Amino acid sequence: MTSLEYIFHPRSIALVGASDNAFNPATIMFLEPLKKFGYTGDIFPVNPNASTVSGLTAYPTVRDIPGPVDHVICAIPASSTRQLLEDCIAKGVKVFHMYTSGFSEIGVHDMGRLQDELVQIARKGGIRIIGPNCMGLYYPKLGISFCPTFPEESGSVGLIAQSGSYSLLVTIGAASRGVRFSKVVSYGNASDINECDLLEYLADDPETDIIAGYIEGTSDGHRLKKVLAEAAGKKPVILVKKGGTAAGTRGASSHTGALAGDDKVWDALIRQSGAIRVPDLEQMIDLLVTFQFMPLPQGKDAVVIGIGGGPSVRAADDCERGGLKLPPIPEDMVAELRRYAPTAGSMLRNPVDVGKMHIDWDPVIKTFTDWGQTDMFIWQIAPDIEPFEENSFIRQFCIDQRARFLQEFIKSGKPLAVAVHTAESRFALSILDITRNECVKHKVPFYTSVYSAARAISQFIDWNRRHSGLP
Amino acid sequence: MTSLEYIFHPRSIALVGASDNAFNPATIMFLEPLKKFGYTGDIFPVNPNASTVSGLTAYPTVRDIPGPVDHVICAIPASSTRQLLEDCIAKGVKVFHMYTSGFSEIGVHDMGRLQDELVQIARKGGIRIIGPNCMGLYYPKLGISFCPTFPEESGSVGLIAQSGSYSLLVTIGAASRGVRFSKVVSYGNASDINECDLLEYLADDPETDIIAGYIEGTSDGHRLKKVLAEAAGKKPVILVKKGGTAAGTRGASSHTGALAGDDKVWDALIRQSGAIRVPDLEQMIDLLVTFQFMPLPQGKDAVVIGIGGGPSVRAADDCERGGLKLPPIPEDMVAELRRYAPTAGSMLRNPVDVGKMHIDWDPVIKTFTDWGQTDMFIWQIAPDIEPFEENSFIRQFCIDQRARFLQEFIKSGKPLAVAVHTAESRFALSILDITRNECVKHKVPFYTSVYSAARAISQFIDWNRRHSGLP
Repeated sequence: MTSLEYIFHPRSIALVGASDNAFNPATIMFLEPLKKFGYTGDIFPVNPNASTVSGLTAYPTVRDIPGPVDHVICAIPASSTRQLLEDCIAKGVKVFHMYTSGFSEIGVHDMGRLQDELVQIARKGGIRIIGPNCMGLYYPKLGISFCPTFPEESGSVGLIAQSGSYSLLVTIGAASRGVRFSKVVSYGNASDINECDLLEYLADDPETDIIAGYIEGTSDGHRLKKVLAEAAGKKPVILVKKGGTAAGTRGASSHTGALAGDDKVWDALIRQSGAIRVPDLEQMIDLLVTFQFMPLPQGKDAVVIGIGGGPSVRAADDCERGGLKLPPIPEDMVAELRRYAPTAGSMLRNPVDVGKMHIDWDPVIKTFTDWGQTDMFIWQIAPDIEPFEENSFIRQFCIDQRARFLQEFIKSGKPLAVAVHTAESRFALSILDITRNECVKHKVPFYTSVYSAARAISQFIDWNRRHSGLP
Repeated sequence: MTSLEYIFHPRSIALVGASDNAFNPATIMFLEPLKKFGYTGDIFPVNPNASTVSGLTAYPTVRDIPGPVDHVICAIPASSTRQLLEDCIAKGVKVFHMYTSGFSEIGVHDMGRLQDELVQIARKGGIRIIGPNCMGLYYPKLGISFCPTFPEESGSVGLIAQSGSYSLLVTIGAASRGVRFSKVVSYGNASDINECDLLEYLADDPETDIIAGYIEGTSDGHRLKKVLAEAAGKKPVILVKKGGTAAGTRGASSHTGALAGDDKVWDALIRQSGAIRVPDLEQMIDLLVTFQFMPLPQGKDAVVIGIGGGPSVRAADDCERGGLKLPPIPEDMVAELRRYAPTAGSMLRNPVDVGKMHIDWDPVIKTFTDWGQTDMFIWQIAPDIEPFEENSFIRQFCIDQRARFLQEFIKSGKPLAVAVHTAESRFALSILDITRNECVKHKVPFYTSVYSAARAISQFIDWNRRHSGLP
């Protein structure tokens, strides 16, 4: 098996089915991003009914394109794909990415057979198929993207996703919290290039430090087991395997035609490989954020700094449920904190609730960070309990205080995570967004709850303990 | 025990400790809301160092106020509260709401003793204490509020919360999804008026149809058991009991001085009473939304309409995990749908994924709603997979389509819920907010995930089955 490296380095890309229609997916999701992300190869729209698309010269067929074409994105109806594939082989195309859906996943026999035929044609013609029924490649380093709002910067997370939606949801969600990607491959029905090929590739990819995968099924459990174990021996591998319940299995089959299989078998396979299985994308994003931004804590003792009594009680429960411990703060530290935080409304145990945002934070933060007996700090913000929406002076004051608090804490160098305690109101959602951006700026891990923070950080510590012998 | 009705009908309210300082909580959280919400009684700021507060005449002490004072909000340091309470008794005040904290909850013996002394003084003087360490009353019908951003309209949910933060979080969170409240009482340390008094009152309150409670502990388990069973026999009662883990118990004690007790005992007590226990406020809000807005489905069969293959697979899992069933859609209905929805990218099973937003929805919706074999529809939106942020034309088109879809569906009269499949990006958060407001406008239950929708709706159906003999 040749390395898949070359699929990420096309000298030119043709978009078959692109048009100037406002809803044309090939134009919105592929062509425009190539331009926006600064792809330096040639971009060739292919459309027999247009002379230009998005200002670029369009060609009636792939064969009419002057010069070499390495990569073709197929966004035409399934019934026309065989002819197109044959054209591509004649043209010397190397990768045939089928955005087109309506093959094995729809459960109609003829279309499943057509998919099989396409694979046979491709194998004979020496061309690789990505898909069908998928979004293809996001490789920001080369300016290749399948979404206009993905980050243009590169990072070190490699993601493969059988679901196009999940490739978008994980990338957009993790990117919102600062995670950046080396490569993302949405591989759909896996008719040719499959999860095993891609995991094998990412395991050896020097641009990828962390591997994430959303899988609905496999056609080769033995190879997957071997490949997963190899990948997980080299890098953290975080997996979502979907289609567990009866309805989910039916859904997965309907979605990518995958053989979903028995969930317990999958669970054992993933656990034995050393990969981390998470139930869904939120936890995948939490772990990506953690592996990317959290300095490794020495142990599981945390101090939670929060505002509000009820949320602090909850934070205690949530930390323990998530696998962390909250050691009580010693009396001399309580006495020290009490000098700066007013008694009323403050709970100076652990979680620590200093009662209000508008205190002098400098000595308080210093007291925290000077204390050597904790492994990490979790700062909980709860914007819905500071509902001063209508007072713009107070709102700005709180936003500024939070930003300063974060910066002062970062200076100390202690492992720090920020977690939001529920954000429901429009006001709270805006504070969530502002605080998140502040965390992204300072490379601080950000979570949507203390529980998810505690769970991810605890898994992260466990993983490091298990893999401490890793290169 | 006299009914607590009178505590909600003060002819006048004095705010002790209010000032014109921008951060003064008495002014921000109590005085300004009274003005904004149109409280028609007299409002008397009390501050020996100011002649006016927020434009109203201020008085040096409660005794100096001309005319009767029914309700006093105490927002001065704990050490001065005894004198104030004595002044209030002399003045004939009926309710003494202690926003002031720093009593039994801080674990300092002297302050716990002071709290006990205040209660003894109050009992002798014929005055009731709410708190200390709490937000007091929200009674929108009379224009009484402890938060400027609460709704001014009244509703039928009565909420009691031992935590001031939770009283804000639940009210703001549920209000964001359209829930309106009859009365909210944040009762803090429960030194005098406690959870039993309040549950007893709400059980008989004709303005309250649904009762919600956040409790950290009780001083009278036997009475609570009796009161809860009575209340739950009359109305749905939804409870959060916090302080379960060791750290949580420590936190709860530190928070309101509550005796948190063994979680299993609490679990049995609540279950036997017929109330619904939920682990936290998100599920409480989900249930309030459901009891308020969801028409009772005849059974647990749901059709999920979604966009995106991966999210649809997940929706199937999540519905089953949450307690609903997804019956397969019959072949003739699939054939009918296929006439209007393009084959490519559509999964016409259940969940139904029609592939794109820009189809002709009218016949599709009619096909759904004409089908008699489902008990409800759950419409899943996933704004992060329609990331056309940069194309304002498409964005507006999708927003308009979603609004129309909702309206067309509502016309059919079938039970409908709307659920968001993860909203992480700033763009998705804004779509969440827009869709939520559309749901609020049309009184459609809105959830932040299919799982939480399924869980709440399933609990709602179970509750109705158990209580079908209710008056």
